[in-house]
Amino acid sequence: MKPNDTQPTALPDAAPPRAADAPSDVFHQRIAVGFDYPVHFTRGLFRVDNPLLADVLDRRREGRRHRALVYVDSGLAGANPDLLGQIKEYFHARPDALELAAPPTIIPGGPPAKQGYELIRDVMWTIGNLHLDRQSYVLAVGGASVLDALGFAASIVHRGLRFVRVPTTTLAQNDAGVGVKNGLDEHGAKNYLGTFAPPFAVLNDFDFLRSLPQEHWIGGIAEAFKVAIIRDADFLDFLCRYAPALRNRDESAIESAVRRCAILHLEHIRDGGDPFEFGSARPLDFGHWAGHRLEILSQHALSHGQAVSVGIALDTEYAFRRGLIPETDRDRILDALDACGLPTYDPLLDLRTREGTLEILQGLEDFREHLGGVLTVTLPHPVGQRVEVHTMNPDLIAAAVAALKRRTPAR
Amino acid sequence: MKPNDTQPTALPDAAPPRAADAPSDVFHQRIAVGFDYPVHFTRGLFRVDNPLLADVLDRRREGRRHRALVYVDSGLAGANPDLLGQIKEYFHARPDALELAAPPTIIPGGPPAKQGYELIRDVMWTIGNLHLDRQSYVLAVGGASVLDALGFAASIVHRGLRFVRVPTTTLAQNDAGVGVKNGLDEHGAKNYLGTFAPPFAVLNDFDFLRSLPQEHWIGGIAEAFKVAIIRDADFLDFLCRYAPALRNRDESAIESAVRRCAILHLEHIRDGGDPFEFGSARPLDFGHWAGHRLEILSQHALSHGQAVSVGIALDTEYAFRRGLIPETDRDRILDALDACGLPTYDPLLDLRTREGTLEILQGLEDFREHLGGVLTVTLPHPVGQRVEVHTMNPDLIAAAVAALKRRTPAR
Repeated sequence: MKPNDTQPTALPDAAPPRAADAPSDVFHQRIAVGFDYPVHFTRGLFRVDNPLLADVLDRRREGRRHRALVYVDSGLAGANPDLLGQIKEYFHARPDALELAAPPTIIPGGPPAKQGYELIRDVMWTIGNLHLDRQSYVLAVGGASVLDALGFAASIVHRGLRFVRVPTTTLAQNDAGVGVKNGLDEHGAKNYLGTFAPPFAVLNDFDFLRSLPQEHWIGGIAEAFKVAIIRDADFLDFLCRYAPALRNRDESAIESAVRRCAILHLEHIRDGGDPFEFGSARPLDFGHWAGHRLEILSQHALSHGQAVSVGIALDTEYAFRRGLIPETDRDRILDALDACGLPTYDPLLDLRTREGTLEILQGLEDFREHLGGVLTVTLPHPVGQRVEVHTMNPDLIAAAVAALKRRTPAR
Repeated sequence: MKPNDTQPTALPDAAPPRAADAPSDVFHQRIAVGFDYPVHFTRGLFRVDNPLLADVLDRRREGRRHRALVYVDSGLAGANPDLLGQIKEYFHARPDALELAAPPTIIPGGPPAKQGYELIRDVMWTIGNLHLDRQSYVLAVGGASVLDALGFAASIVHRGLRFVRVPTTTLAQNDAGVGVKNGLDEHGAKNYLGTFAPPFAVLNDFDFLRSLPQEHWIGGIAEAFKVAIIRDADFLDFLCRYAPALRNRDESAIESAVRRCAILHLEHIRDGGDPFEFGSARPLDFGHWAGHRLEILSQHALSHGQAVSVGIALDTEYAFRRGLIPETDRDRILDALDACGLPTYDPLLDLRTREGTLEILQGLEDFREHLGGVLTVTLPHPVGQRVEVHTMNPDLIAAAVAALKRRTPAR
């Protein structure tokens, strides 16, 4: 249909003309975006003879020299003084396939890594100064905070470079490093800024766990309890049985726990129907409403793993008091956390506002606000399965806090 | 399978145990994320009796009061002094359904709106201070720069609030406001920061076009030429025929052009197979490599529409000289741009570096770098269809510049 000579007409395939009284016409846009990424479990990732990293960077078989910027967590670099040299050697041994756009750079690890936008500005400007493009790589080697901050930076420059995570703590390997999110703490809230940005690949190297201080060795096991309690009764049996081995740095036990926990997270994201959390599905966040609040109240004196462990203890006690799980399960969960050396109580749980209510209750509103919509808290019912509740009874929370306090020896 | 008594075993459904010489085991994560949003064409969006906006905000039928922050482009607010009052009245007339979290706020429009992160910090902190959550709304009413900047802010707070675009220029209504991207100019580059973040809805109100200064009335028509030349020969016929009407503010002509151009963009994003531009598909960017460079060289003295028009003229002349389109098509395109009052030449096209090469050529490398991978430029062949080329001949570009200069009367 050509426009006629008197006035422009609707063009071919355009929306139909509006009737005089129709408020609008509309085009319904629908798109589907596919994401895929491998999560590898390996050892000796940067050993010159390990082909994995080079293979992964070329997994789209683009037949060109791949440029990368590499950032290393200061905690890891301190415990592995040869690491930066190894990374350089790895790249230099493959001059036709790989190029380091700049020498590997150490960045401060731990929670300060993600406390604010200013910290990632250098990274973002470096990407531009070195003329990396959307098909170049940013590799982040370190703990969850470093992965979160660098993942955010890499996701917003040029609307997203390829981001490869090399998680080096139990927490990052089995939880924070395998999913589709990143985040920066800003404006007084955890992950106030962030994006949903699936990585290009995740490379879990168990060798990195060996040099972890005990707190970070065991910290990620709190997340393993989290996912086991609401998704996998067999895995909970495993964690309860091997709690002493896990605490005592049994590498076989930690590898099994890390691998299983990572895969449960990946399956939850894949099968939940709502990986970007638009509203219908829940992330795996049992125990996290109180955990997040405790991290903030302690000003990060409690690590994420420790805070989550206390949060899990609280919601386990609460679930028992709500009649959702039997006493035996409550007891073996709390005992297993104890056996791992993970805390089940902290005095901050009992902190009160001027009005006498528990400070921790603010965590419920923070939690609701971050996810949006109505409050939804996941609880076990029975152990290994989950139920969602939309209110938490403050008196029952207070009773649970008191019960946890009673079973904890005074310090 | 339960763990046995001697050592932890692979858990149910975990990855298979590694052979001693296998470098790694792997879990291949695959997820698909669906996005859908309506693009409405209406009039009188904020008239109290127009139900569209309220219906759109409740399109998921959540049965709650929807909270929103509304930002209005200063250029639009200046030309429509009653607008802020109308928006307030619209919300206040529906107290059970809608809530303004704060009075509508004017923000500076035009390219300065998106020049840097500092400008959006206030917006981001306001979202937190007012306790908006992921299911709350940010409405942006204005031109493409305002939509880009606010869209970026809304996409990174809490990993993304619901963002509603109310584009008010031809450019925003038929191109920049209907797609899945946002952006901030930073570190000396256009859209250096940004995300792929489909909106919750787009509401195109033709009434807003009426108060546009001529430059913004006609600016978006450059994008209509862009899409017509490489996708829709009938639409190009329409634009050539109605160029004088478009210039002379014929509302029927501009509505047809805006609607058709918007739908072509939406279809291209939907059907291109790669809406987030991971590598295989091309955005609709004919004429844009030079256009972007001219905007920067002119320090935004050339608007986006004007710069793109010159870029289209250059690539049209180039396509003719490459034998991709006949002289008759080259002539009617350049003549139609002239007839619209859109520029087909600018002295910056002929600017030389100290070495004597055309400054504009740097735009090819900027363009490649932003998209990543190999340079890909889209050209018409024949008109209404497209071909991708991976090199541009600098001598042919120089000849095209000289030809455009010759046909332009000296100022």
